[in-house]
Amino acid sequence: MRAFVLFASKAVTTHEFHLNDLPGSGGRMDLVARCVTQAIWLSNEIRKDVAVYCTLNGPPSPPKTVGFFSDKLKRVSPDERSIASWIKKALENRVEKEWKKVQEGIFVSGTDLISLVRELKNACNFELYLLHPRGEDIRKVTISSNPCFILGDHIGLPQEIEEEIERMGARKISIGPKEYLASTCIAVVNNELDRRGME
Amino acid sequence: MRAFVLFASKAVTTHEFHLNDLPGSGGRMDLVARCVTQAIWLSNEIRKDVAVYCTLNGPPSPPKTVGFFSDKLKRVSPDERSIASWIKKALENRVEKEWKKVQEGIFVSGTDLISLVRELKNACNFELYLLHPRGEDIRKVTISSNPCFILGDHIGLPQEIEEEIERMGARKISIGPKEYLASTCIAVVNNELDRRGME
Repeated sequence: MRAFVLFASKAVTTHEFHLNDLPGSGGRMDLVARCVTQAIWLSNEIRKDVAVYCTLNGPPSPPKTVGFFSDKLKRVSPDERSIASWIKKALENRVEKEWKKVQEGIFVSGTDLISLVRELKNACNFELYLLHPRGEDIRKVTISSNPCFILGDHIGLPQEIEEEIERMGARKISIGPKEYLASTCIAVVNNELDRRGME
Repeated sequence: MRAFVLFASKAVTTHEFHLNDLPGSGGRMDLVARCVTQAIWLSNEIRKDVAVYCTLNGPPSPPKTVGFFSDKLKRVSPDERSIASWIKKALENRVEKEWKKVQEGIFVSGTDLISLVRELKNACNFELYLLHPRGEDIRKVTISSNPCFILGDHIGLPQEIEEEIERMGARKISIGPKEYLASTCIAVVNNELDRRGME
């Protein structure tokens, strides 16, 4: 099992955004959708056993987290609009702390990033890795069999969140010498784990 | 300089597709757009010196090739809809063999994949690399300073085109043990070149 947690600092927390304007009205919901695509899809198939949690922190009522679980997904396509339409549907719900099912493989909750990461570590036994431009090179780092990768959007993680995640024992890793799109980071991490034969 | 050439076997060759339905009416134009994004964008900036050529081979009048040149691009965003809207604008032109400028950094031509690749090799001095699930591992391959990576969409390259490109001297390389989205392949190739300090 592998998990990705995206902190989307501007992504809106209402279903009232326009599918025709994901960058503007969605608060860069295009970026969120691209991350889900790169986390979950292979060519012509869906990966097994991947979870992606997108913590939306934009107005009007942050935080809200939408989770995609690859093993259960049905009727979802890898294009941005399709994924954004599921996020929109998730946000139509009355969102509380408890996870609520939106459809097969898609859930929504009012959890914040720190509570989510703590739950993934303590209840689900994930090892934490923080994707960061100044982290250790992923190619030189041993990755556990149950890794959870946490990353920010184009703005990055707020410093206090980054520090809190490090205090939880997260290892700071980097995918390369540039500052990459969040979706690129996920693509490269998935490829690295595949090369190691990890499922 | 690095170049990517995508063979999009079903992508339509008319501007009459719907931006609200890139997978269906566009013949997987979402896939094409994602490739452009992964080829050209870093976080908050555009890469220097990257060209992406998308050869569209769907109905009604294939082939048509849309080229994006990162150094010249202006007013383009990395979301699928924005990129698809530029492809749509390109296809509004009367397309001939000669390259026609659509806007700064975006050109369109009626060239087919083989003619394009031949031109890139002979006139522009690119070394050819064919991305293929059964190629040599990219991490073990020396990449020239002027590489051109050719890849197919979810269907892949037709065998005769693959063979012709190999006859032109292309080296067959692979990014990993799975069959990846075309956009994932581009993301991983870019990362590998960055790690080698190549511009």
